[in-house]
Amino acid sequence: MSPSARTILVTGANGFIGRRLVARLAGDPHFAEARITACDIVEPALSPPRVERVAGDLTDPRFLARIVEDAPDLVFHLASILGGAAEAHYDLARRVNVDSTLSLFEALRRPDSPPRVVFASSIAVFGPPLPERIDDGTHPFPTMVYGAHKRMMEIALEQFSARGWIDGIAIRLPGIVARADADARQRAAFINRVFHAVAKGEDMVLPVTPEGTTWMISVPACIDSFVRAALVPSDRLGQSRAMTLPAQNVAFGDLVAALRAAFPESRSRIDYAPQADIVAQFGSQPPLATPLAESLGFLHDGDLPTLIRRALAESGA
Amino acid sequence: MSPSARTILVTGANGFIGRRLVARLAGDPHFAEARITACDIVEPALSPPRVERVAGDLTDPRFLARIVEDAPDLVFHLASILGGAAEAHYDLARRVNVDSTLSLFEALRRPDSPPRVVFASSIAVFGPPLPERIDDGTHPFPTMVYGAHKRMMEIALEQFSARGWIDGIAIRLPGIVARADADARQRAAFINRVFHAVAKGEDMVLPVTPEGTTWMISVPACIDSFVRAALVPSDRLGQSRAMTLPAQNVAFGDLVAALRAAFPESRSRIDYAPQADIVAQFGSQPPLATPLAESLGFLHDGDLPTLIRRALAESGA
Repeated sequence: MSPSARTILVTGANGFIGRRLVARLAGDPHFAEARITACDIVEPALSPPRVERVAGDLTDPRFLARIVEDAPDLVFHLASILGGAAEAHYDLARRVNVDSTLSLFEALRRPDSPPRVVFASSIAVFGPPLPERIDDGTHPFPTMVYGAHKRMMEIALEQFSARGWIDGIAIRLPGIVARADADARQRAAFINRVFHAVAKGEDMVLPVTPEGTTWMISVPACIDSFVRAALVPSDRLGQSRAMTLPAQNVAFGDLVAALRAAFPESRSRIDYAPQADIVAQFGSQPPLATPLAESLGFLHDGDLPTLIRRALAESGA
Repeated sequence: MSPSARTILVTGANGFIGRRLVARLAGDPHFAEARITACDIVEPALSPPRVERVAGDLTDPRFLARIVEDAPDLVFHLASILGGAAEAHYDLARRVNVDSTLSLFEALRRPDSPPRVVFASSIAVFGPPLPERIDDGTHPFPTMVYGAHKRMMEIALEQFSARGWIDGIAIRLPGIVARADADARQRAAFINRVFHAVAKGEDMVLPVTPEGTTWMISVPACIDSFVRAALVPSDRLGQSRAMTLPAQNVAFGDLVAALRAAFPESRSRIDYAPQADIVAQFGSQPPLATPLAESLGFLHDGDLPTLIRRALAESGA
């Protein structure tokens, strides 16, 4: 993929990240010449200049054929049935996360000029339970449907790339903070909510321990990572094209202290009532080393004050 | 899975290995009480007692539903589009090796009493090119369609097993010798043919070097491994359910010398004309360590004279 992509395709373009990514691409000078197709199952709400919005179902082969018709040279594949939903609706998750994703990769094969395909993967490829340490040598053993689907598609992306059919890169996203409208039914919603609780002076009970740790990047750091993934020169990518992104490994007690420092006037009271299953999945994430992604220029937010500032700057629905 | 399986399903039952596995199961006292369903796309030729033969296409959901109707408690999934054919017919390979295999695993989910599912995987999950050494910690990076499909299904099998939906084990098969009717169009056919050439006194040119090495087990060792995989107690299986089988790493010069010793009257002349691509894939396989499979009781043939004797004892079509 050259920085001068002419046609860009974004799937899942109406999602929390998808909308922000499309807006960023439309405004980024790297992609100033590109025509952008933003597709989602519902018609993407945002429509910056140069963006064509298309609504349709990736599990419909005709729709899939239509969105690759202009042979996009840069593709961001974000459409997915996420964690809890994938558990609750296995068959739908398989159709979207495996069948359609593999069909999309197949439809994008162009050995004469392989398109850069940026695939939104997830740290869900690791466990739960998580290993004691995660680095680029750690074997992913996904145990949830969502994580297994992401891992299977990483394998396909790496094989297609090894053959020169596509020029793929899969970035494993950690927790992304801090959406204001996080669905409270999602088990990880509390991680988003604590930012807003302290900012607004609301009380909250966290289902983890103060010492418990979780990996975080802000929404802007996430969008930066997608753009970075588009721009990594092909000759810098080897066999390993699925990589865990850098993230801060934040203890909840430290996060709350940093939030209080950022909002000294807040009278929010934060208590802890650890729940074993939540602690296991989101409140005891191990040390993380991401030398591969770092060597390619991926960055986390740097420090907690910056994370908090950026997380709350980009948190609206 | 208990050794007292009542219903056994074998897919790919008409293949070179499938036929021998069905015959072995029908005669093995471990499975004396079991009803065996042998299915393949053509009606399996062999029909020992207690074996029901069914012909049909695994890519047909009705056929798939039919073969799992009696809730088999032991399943051997051998049906697959193999290496060269998978490269030549990508779409068919995807339908059989991914879509139907995943659908079969799904149809077998039985959390109250998960069936033992033995999946025929392959060392094709590694490369080519192969890493400098392969052990249980080596990351598989499949570059061929066939190897990627096997690897994706290993991921699914491990996730389904972690959740208690099935009780799976994936065994990665090395080269299996020595079928007399090996299809000469297959790139690895020469490995089979050299056994028969020396035995029959025929001349042959090998496309590798005498120092070049390849992993081998005999057909009987392969069948033993499938039976072993059925009998490994569930509580001995952890997170890692995909494992490379023990194999002898044989130099072709040593193999030819051992064949001459076994057939001292043979006047066969064996020459070497190395072909780079064949050497890369089949004639320079690295040192192999398989402690996980060995700890579970899997064995290779032990030594070259035994390998040769067993390889030629079970080599007919």
